[in-house]
Amino acid sequence: MADVARHAGVSLKTVSRVVNQEPHVSGPLQRRVQEAINALGFRRNEAASRLARGAAMLTIGLVMENISNQFYAHLAAAVESAAAEHEALVVFGSYEERPERERMLVESMFARGVDSLILVPSAGGHGWLAELLGGGLRAVFVDRVPAGLPESSAVLLDDFKGGRLATEHLMARGHRRIALISDDENLSSVHDRARGYREALGTVDESLVTSGVFDPWRAAREVDRLLELPDPPTAFFATNNRAAIGILQALRTRRERPAFVGFDDFALADVFDPGVSVVRYDTALLGRTAVDLLLDGGPARMVRVPVELVVRGSGELPVTTSESASRRGRG
Amino acid sequence: MADVARHAGVSLKTVSRVVNQEPHVSGPLQRRVQEAINALGFRRNEAASRLARGAAMLTIGLVMENISNQFYAHLAAAVESAAAEHEALVVFGSYEERPERERMLVESMFARGVDSLILVPSAGGHGWLAELLGGGLRAVFVDRVPAGLPESSAVLLDDFKGGRLATEHLMARGHRRIALISDDENLSSVHDRARGYREALGTVDESLVTSGVFDPWRAAREVDRLLELPDPPTAFFATNNRAAIGILQALRTRRERPAFVGFDDFALADVFDPGVSVVRYDTALLGRTAVDLLLDGGPARMVRVPVELVVRGSGELPVTTSESASRRGRG
Repeated sequence: MADVARHAGVSLKTVSRVVNQEPHVSGPLQRRVQEAINALGFRRNEAASRLARGAAMLTIGLVMENISNQFYAHLAAAVESAAAEHEALVVFGSYEERPERERMLVESMFARGVDSLILVPSAGGHGWLAELLGGGLRAVFVDRVPAGLPESSAVLLDDFKGGRLATEHLMARGHRRIALISDDENLSSVHDRARGYREALGTVDESLVTSGVFDPWRAAREVDRLLELPDPPTAFFATNNRAAIGILQALRTRRERPAFVGFDDFALADVFDPGVSVVRYDTALLGRTAVDLLLDGGPARMVRVPVELVVRGSGELPVTTSESASRRGRG
Repeated sequence: MADVARHAGVSLKTVSRVVNQEPHVSGPLQRRVQEAINALGFRRNEAASRLARGAAMLTIGLVMENISNQFYAHLAAAVESAAAEHEALVVFGSYEERPERERMLVESMFARGVDSLILVPSAGGHGWLAELLGGGLRAVFVDRVPAGLPESSAVLLDDFKGGRLATEHLMARGHRRIALISDDENLSSVHDRARGYREALGTVDESLVTSGVFDPWRAAREVDRLLELPDPPTAFFATNNRAAIGILQALRTRRERPAFVGFDDFALADVFDPGVSVVRYDTALLGRTAVDLLLDGGPARMVRVPVELVVRGSGELPVTTSESASRRGRG
């Protein structure tokens, strides 16, 4: 600071006032000090001094399934952007369908002083989390809530409505044999999407319902299997982007053109021909709301982010006639 | 620990020995203590005790352009996975083409004790970084190196070879009018990819070279503009995934079928018809090598990750005849 004062030709006290943003320093004087600070690369010392002063510098933990999936990458970007407005940093971890790694990540972050957590919980049990919540951890759940935990805030999608919207949209084009390509139904989000599908259909042919489909490859194999049934589905509802991508992969090498709607938008969904109709939502709003709920200090709340149907072509395809299906059978 | 000792029916000293992984504890005794620890949810205390003991618990800073881009999301996943092997956490930040935010993120992390940094540098100046490097920050550059900095380790792709491979591949199908859709050439990676393109072609028609294309929308507009030229390109080389996606978007509504090769693989590149031929590399290796270089403690090194051409169809399309181009003109 002495160097800055010398460089700016002002007193040490003036430098201190400008750095600490105290009132009663004239504009020109502020500018002179600021220029001297810039010229001398003072910023690092300023940061170190903030650290020494113990200024509240928050680090938010973000634990989710896999950051390389588009949904999580966009969520992480939204959380980071909202956190930056509070000068908070974000430390992240992916547990990749391993609940024991989820626990290890959260405990490891908490042990290092990260007491504010945004968690997309796995389908595993979360009894271990109760102790941490009692011990000072603040947590907000995103996208799903684990069963049987003390009240915590959560920001979820309107999954039930999304599942119903997608299915009703296909039904409006005459589809009744609509297959469900679904993730783990122990996840509250997936459960609710499937519930929307079931409520829209009324009567469900369980032979058209799959679950436990975690990646595009498996989804593609399920599409192949279902389209080989004696009475195949004429349409598909995919409960996440990985399943939708699997449907695209399977249809690339097949003659059938079943209708389909995905849950989750994804890059390039609008570039295929036909474009992929999806249930969409605002991922930035999801992330921002999570940060708001984490920092607002109020009682636990649950917020639902709205969903909408985006019409691009794949969800509007007509029912394939049984004639074309039998033609395929002979081909 | 007393609870664990009681639960396991062993002495406090035995529990302490097992927890601290000291020798001379029999296998069955270790198992009994471990089971008691699991039963009592001892893990959190163990973590807290590690913190109290001041065990080296590393946090790695990861600063890059935008985590919602596929390349960065996969890089982040790879860095986190490699960091986890060292029990290190990863704090991340996206600067979104704003060099001043890049600086703010790095300084803010350093001020909070994050002294190990993996940085994908922006195209801006990095003079400010020299002071931090002198002040104890360790840094490894990924994908690009900033100009004029003291020696730091870096892990880069073989960009020059990738640019040459892609261009030579198109030339082998007879293409000579190959357009370059390129990002900021101030980035060392983009610069080297363009250099590979230029060296392969020998003579370059500068009217077919674009730069400053940062997003798919802009890339699509450039493709439209180039294809309307009196003597349009018959092929494209896209220096990143955003440009390749822009090419796909532009071609969706056009009749021309120019050949093209992208640099960077991306999800669904193999699902289009024809599939998108790309220059590919191992992003996991890129991230793992960055963590290795950061932690190995040796002198500064530069590592090049190899690239390869993936043939899927778009890069193997023949030269469009001028007749079909003029047909389009009349259409």
